[in-house]
Amino acid sequence: MATVPLLSDAAAGAEALAVFDDIRAKRQTDYVNNFWRALAGDPALLRATWERLQVVMAPGALDPLVKEMVYLAVSTANGCSYCVHSHTAAAKARGMTEAQHGELLAVIAMASQTNALATVLGVPVDERFMA
Amino acid sequence: MATVPLLSDAAAGAEALAVFDDIRAKRQTDYVNNFWRALAGDPALLRATWERLQVVMAPGALDPLVKEMVYLAVSTANGCSYCVHSHTAAAKARGMTEAQHGELLAVIAMASQTNALATVLGVPVDERFMA
Amino acid sequence: MATVPLLSDAAAGAEALAVFDDIRAKRQTDYVNNFWRALAGDPALLRATWERLQVVMAPGALDPLVKEMVYLAVSTANGCSYCVHSHTAAAKARGMTEAQHGELLAVIAMASQTNALATVLGVPVDERFMA
Amino acid sequence: MATVPLLSDAAAGAEALAVFDDIRAKRQTDYVNNFWRALAGDPALLRATWERLQVVMAPGALDPLVKEMVYLAVSTANGCSYCVHSHTAAAKARGMTEAQHGELLAVIAMASQTNALATVLGVPVDERFMA
Amino acid sequence: MATVPLLSDAAAGAEALAVFDDIRAKRQTDYVNNFWRALAGDPALLRATWERLQVVMAPGALDPLVKEMVYLAVSTANGCSYCVHSHTAAAKARGMTEAQHGELLAVIAMASQTNALATVLGVPVDERFMA
Amino acid sequence: MATVPLLSDAAAGAEALAVFDDIRAKRQTDYVNNFWRALAGDPALLRATWERLQVVMAPGALDPLVKEMVYLAVSTANGCSYCVHSHTAAAKARGMTEAQHGELLAVIAMASQTNALATVLGVPVDERFMA
Repeated sequence: MATVPLLSDAAAGAEALAVFDDIRAKRQTDYVNNFWRALAGDPALLRATWERLQVVMAPGALDPLVKEMVYLAVSTANGCSYCVHSHTAAAKARGMTEAQHGELLAVIAMASQTNALATVLGVPVDERFMA
Repeated sequence: MATVPLLSDAAAGAEALAVFDDIRAKRQTDYVNNFWRALAGDPALLRATWERLQVVMAPGALDPLVKEMVYLAVSTANGCSYCVHSHTAAAKARGMTEAQHGELLAVIAMASQTNALATVLGVPVDERFMA
Repeated sequence: MATVPLLSDAAAGAEALAVFDDIRAKRQTDYVNNFWRALAGDPALLRATWERLQVVMAPGALDPLVKEMVYLAVSTANGCSYCVHSHTAAAKARGMTEAQHGELLAVIAMASQTNALATVLGVPVDERFMA
Repeated sequence: MATVPLLSDAAAGAEALAVFDDIRAKRQTDYVNNFWRALAGDPALLRATWERLQVVMAPGALDPLVKEMVYLAVSTANGCSYCVHSHTAAAKARGMTEAQHGELLAVIAMASQTNALATVLGVPVDERFMA
Repeated sequence: MATVPLLSDAAAGAEALAVFDDIRAKRQTDYVNNFWRALAGDPALLRATWERLQVVMAPGALDPLVKEMVYLAVSTANGCSYCVHSHTAAAKARGMTEAQHGELLAVIAMASQTNALATVLGVPVDERFMA
Repeated sequence: MATVPLLSDAAAGAEALAVFDDIRAKRQTDYVNNFWRALAGDPALLRATWERLQVVMAPGALDPLVKEMVYLAVSTANGCSYCVHSHTAAAKARGMTEAQHGELLAVIAMASQTNALATVLGVPVDERFMA
């Protein structure tokens, strides 16, 4: 599939290639995954996305593994198959254990069902939950 | 709003009231929030939801605050306004700082945009991301 | 709220009013609900939506109550608060009992959680489930 | 694809295998579909999901075919391709005719479009639709 | 995949074939894409969908390319992979340039992230945005 | 509602206030809408969002009105009530006529229903739609 070509290094323009090189350098790998190759047809969007991603996912008040698990949770609820695969891999690369993975899935499933229940019941927000 | 009555203690049947009492005891509060009162029209569903929630959200390989942040992330992507309010409150009650909250929002926003990009580009899953 | 005016009979144009009258006649009620009043700014869209709705929701191989419950289930998953309220009312008007309502909620909740699990696990479709 | 291994009987642990056996016995088939094999890496989640599914989908105030059609409708709106395939197969196995299938699709399509319209118009809920 | 057979001309009934012929005539092509072949098992739904599509997508106050870009944006947010592919192709056939495509992707990504932020923050609608 | 305080000018810190001032200057208005006031608790996220929005929504290969209509379409499919209200207002401010608004709604509704149909039918992507 894909609605655009996945650009190889040879096919990518100079701007896109510079981003590919930065991805390789920062991640210390030779591999540039398909998401970036698909974005490479629009080098400005490619760069903006890559730059922002680094800011957002950097260690801070939340550790990078927690951020990856949150990313995976959002990707699941948004039904993004590509993202579910890439961020499961990323979470494992950051040390997610099988036990953590299992609990993460259980929370995602639980939230999905109570989200549906709160919506179908039209539950009004409790006063005390408003800021 | 609400598509069903929110049952007060007086209006709830014995089975529902027993769940309300368990919620109060386990949470060490007098307050039973609207979600449970809306579910109380179906005591079996009320009990099953409450029992499962306790199992899923208990401390384990992931700490309860991480679980609450994941819950909030899923609720956002599913567009559940009630859940967003109740789980922001729950995360704060579990100690989420302003800095953690801000980073959580940034990850949710980032995931939402790359989810959309991966979907519109139809990016095929990289071989290495498959189990 | 509302992003457009809800047109009263007096404010609606002749084409929209004719649809309002048809709604009243077919439903044997004086009441025209807000959805139709919001659509009345575009009489062609109003008429097309109303005409199609009657075809789709007419008794056929599925009975009208089953159709209303399916409609409510879709509206829940799509997070449409208005639709959840209007189709809960419609299902009750068609005879949905409390027991049926409770079981419907339980199925919606169950589906929501296994949908999330199948997505996060990236489960490939079994050969035998393909037509 | 898949973000986790699909466990064969040989690869599954004793707890997971016991669930597989229960699935086979209750469904009177030798076949265990991929969803359960993907969940088998977390036997507790596998068992909780299977146990709850049986409670929810049992005959009751709604007949099992209606429940399957509702399940399919939710799965569609949630964009779960796996679930759409497995629950179409399940509905056919429970006797869904071609005419019923066609009407179900028409209701799902209709709800999807009016959900979108009600949302974009920001239609406020009519007083009479609130419980 | 597919949950229903994709009907060839030979397998389609007379009513479905008439719609296929109309698609070929109006689009001036021999090709009937899979969406229509999948719908052909229910000729009434096939015809209603095709008829309505022509009305909606006809040139009017918005030009057809803008309509295709909106269609693609909705399909992305709804996570419909088939639709993303077919409407990207359709937009290109209507003259969408690479620069337009890139800007469209950027808007979709931007909207997705601010949608998530507005939802997680529970931002109340400003008085001035209400009709 | 709101899960965070909406910061007034007086309550906002210096960094947030600088963004508010930039919004007022660029938009030539005294009014800062609730979305920005809700984000102001995290000035870095506020600034990043505002900066990126200006880049994305600037006139380019697509005109600003088309961008607003696409934004509204995405917001609808994502079920973001706040965004639907704010971007309907923004599209009107950019000159969207009633006729354009009506056609936009019709396209959104049409896409929503064919998205659902393509998903429930599991239609495989035609070879010719792949890049």
